[in-house]
Amino acid sequence: MNLPTTETLLLEQKDHALHITLNRPKARNAMSLQMVHELMAVFESIKDDRSVRAVVLRGADGHFCAGGDIKDMAGARAAASNADEQNDPYYNLNREFGRMLTQVNSAPQVVIAVTEGAVLGGGFGLVCVSDVAITAESAKFGLPETGLGIPPAQIAPFVVNRIGLTQTRRLALLGARFDGTEAARLGIVHTVCSDEDIEQELEAVLTQVKRCAPEANIITKALILSVGNDELDNVLDHAARSFSDCVQGKEGQEGTMAFIQKRRPNWA
Amino acid sequence: MNLPTTETLLLEQKDHALHITLNRPKARNAMSLQMVHELMAVFESIKDDRSVRAVVLRGADGHFCAGGDIKDMAGARAAASNADEQNDPYYNLNREFGRMLTQVNSAPQVVIAVTEGAVLGGGFGLVCVSDVAITAESAKFGLPETGLGIPPAQIAPFVVNRIGLTQTRRLALLGARFDGTEAARLGIVHTVCSDEDIEQELEAVLTQVKRCAPEANIITKALILSVGNDELDNVLDHAARSFSDCVQGKEGQEGTMAFIQKRRPNWA
Amino acid sequence: MNLPTTETLLLEQKDHALHITLNRPKARNAMSLQMVHELMAVFESIKDDRSVRAVVLRGADGHFCAGGDIKDMAGARAAASNADEQNDPYYNLNREFGRMLTQVNSAPQVVIAVTEGAVLGGGFGLVCVSDVAITAESAKFGLPETGLGIPPAQIAPFVVNRIGLTQTRRLALLGARFDGTEAARLGIVHTVCSDEDIEQELEAVLTQVKRCAPEANIITKALILSVGNDELDNVLDHAARSFSDCVQGKEGQEGTMAFIQKRRPNWA
Repeated sequence: MNLPTTETLLLEQKDHALHITLNRPKARNAMSLQMVHELMAVFESIKDDRSVRAVVLRGADGHFCAGGDIKDMAGARAAASNADEQNDPYYNLNREFGRMLTQVNSAPQVVIAVTEGAVLGGGFGLVCVSDVAITAESAKFGLPETGLGIPPAQIAPFVVNRIGLTQTRRLALLGARFDGTEAARLGIVHTVCSDEDIEQELEAVLTQVKRCAPEANIITKALILSVGNDELDNVLDHAARSFSDCVQGKEGQEGTMAFIQKRRPNWA
Repeated sequence: MNLPTTETLLLEQKDHALHITLNRPKARNAMSLQMVHELMAVFESIKDDRSVRAVVLRGADGHFCAGGDIKDMAGARAAASNADEQNDPYYNLNREFGRMLTQVNSAPQVVIAVTEGAVLGGGFGLVCVSDVAITAESAKFGLPETGLGIPPAQIAPFVVNRIGLTQTRRLALLGARFDGTEAARLGIVHTVCSDEDIEQELEAVLTQVKRCAPEANIITKALILSVGNDELDNVLDHAARSFSDCVQGKEGQEGTMAFIQKRRPNWA
Repeated sequence: MNLPTTETLLLEQKDHALHITLNRPKARNAMSLQMVHELMAVFESIKDDRSVRAVVLRGADGHFCAGGDIKDMAGARAAASNADEQNDPYYNLNREFGRMLTQVNSAPQVVIAVTEGAVLGGGFGLVCVSDVAITAESAKFGLPETGLGIPPAQIAPFVVNRIGLTQTRRLALLGARFDGTEAARLGIVHTVCSDEDIEQELEAVLTQVKRCAPEANIITKALILSVGNDELDNVLDHAARSFSDCVQGKEGQEGTMAFIQKRRPNWA
């Protein structure tokens, strides 16, 4: 694996998973532009690496991510005074965060978010593009943006895609704050557990990922994300082609054989 | 504020909220065509009024709204005998109700529905276009239309947008009736409380609205409603422009300053 | 009623409902290609039969359906060695299953799924196109496909339409297995009951269907399914035309009369 050098992220591969720790603990892991770029570089570097079947996103020192970074905003302010319409530093700062979310959302790996402590603004958005999200019940979720006079611009669309219009409009327009149990009820995360059980829950998820065939999972994720972007009949036509390819491919043959022989397939 | 004169609605502005009471208590506030037109006129009149940041929709005398009005149907029947295809009074009566729902759905204010007693047919539809819905647990929700031999024509599409296809198909095809607790479970409303706690819950919501910047909330609501109507990348591009405008605008500057000075911003 | 002869399905009409029992108990009612074709033939045969207002889908001997059929896969394998690109037997086998789901999804009747025992793969997909789904709490739901090296190709898009992207991505990418209570929480089914209460629950649903006017229900189901396929204003225009037709039609007149005379309408 050829991972990029990172300053704001800790990277560690264990077995089939890459563990990414947002690591700016003094700022409760606030999402700086540098962190955004490093996340993009890491996901780009593992895009074709089939040894990485899961990515775990987590924050250092008991917080997931407290939102955007104030220093970047100050930097944009300084740059804005000299900027023209074509090169608006506030626009660029904001839009780049959304590009990162778009990239993580469609990463071929199973992306697992583990949330504790602050899960605010940009951190909230990052959870919304994970495939599996586990939270400690004591975590504090929130969309504080409109209370600061700004819209949750790159985040809100991913929240709508995560939990639908009905709950999003209330959360965003009230600047709501809530704990892990409520985050699970709303569907932002999939599972809530007591703070001490979170490692065990993560292990269980990683074990389940391992039992699923790597290529089949990649194809399945892409299929699921394509629903709604094309007519259903076209999605189903394309899916049937993938099915045929997979059945006749290495994994399909091994999976069938293992099933008949009552043993685990070689990817498990 | 220049509110229209209304016969079927009581209007009262308190602080930053306009309270609209559906007021045809003898008919359990059934939604007459006049009431539809008065609602449209009221929302039109406050469209650009920034002193109104929230609208509270509620019914008089312990009911929200018991559905459509029987007299309007009789009127349409009388008119239908003389009507041609181009001017079908049943079509017009029904379609106008849907136009009102479309307008309320995208009102710039935070629309809060408070439901008690009967929440049937048209009343059910009106709840489905609110940003925040609070219900008394004893409220009675239902879609009785198909039991009367007619489809919930203007209502069902808003129910689908509210709670999705899966739950809507069951509710509509069974003519289901249920209480406030079930309405919250299904996501038609956001919060259920005991009948005596409802004023307190409404106050809490109005306080939360006040803490959110008025312009940022308007932009956020429009952004959320736009998701799915355009490609995600376009939505995000547009959102980043709004972000830049807001950060550099009055609210963004005041919000940042208030945050640094650890005080409430001037809109709160 | 002119029902086709079937080998894999038991058919019985009682009152206003056609009961279809998936009947390959030795294979836990695994969905063979023959069963797919017989389901399509049965739904086609009742398409215009207004005496059938509900269809109950259930499995023989305590299981709903354990997924696809292994013999069909073996048959496709044999055929594949001689096949060209234009006539891929794996593609055809898989795609035909999706065609059946598409057809059942938009059947004019109220489709009721009753699930017990195994509800896996194709059985899971079939539940996802029902209008009302009732499960025994002990039922075992699951998407085991990626554990076998293949994607849940025709199933996953219907799961996304059933419960949304957020929960589907987790279930499919972990090959999750869960019981009836969890299936209800996720919204795959509408109601969970103890194993002994399931007949009673089904009776209650069938009674509710009977109270709803047959034509109004057909129009309502088509309306609900059309949301999202066209602009909302067009959906509402079309719905208002249907409303006008229904009000002036037989059911609308009978429904109004029955309401005024405080009696049950003639369809109930």
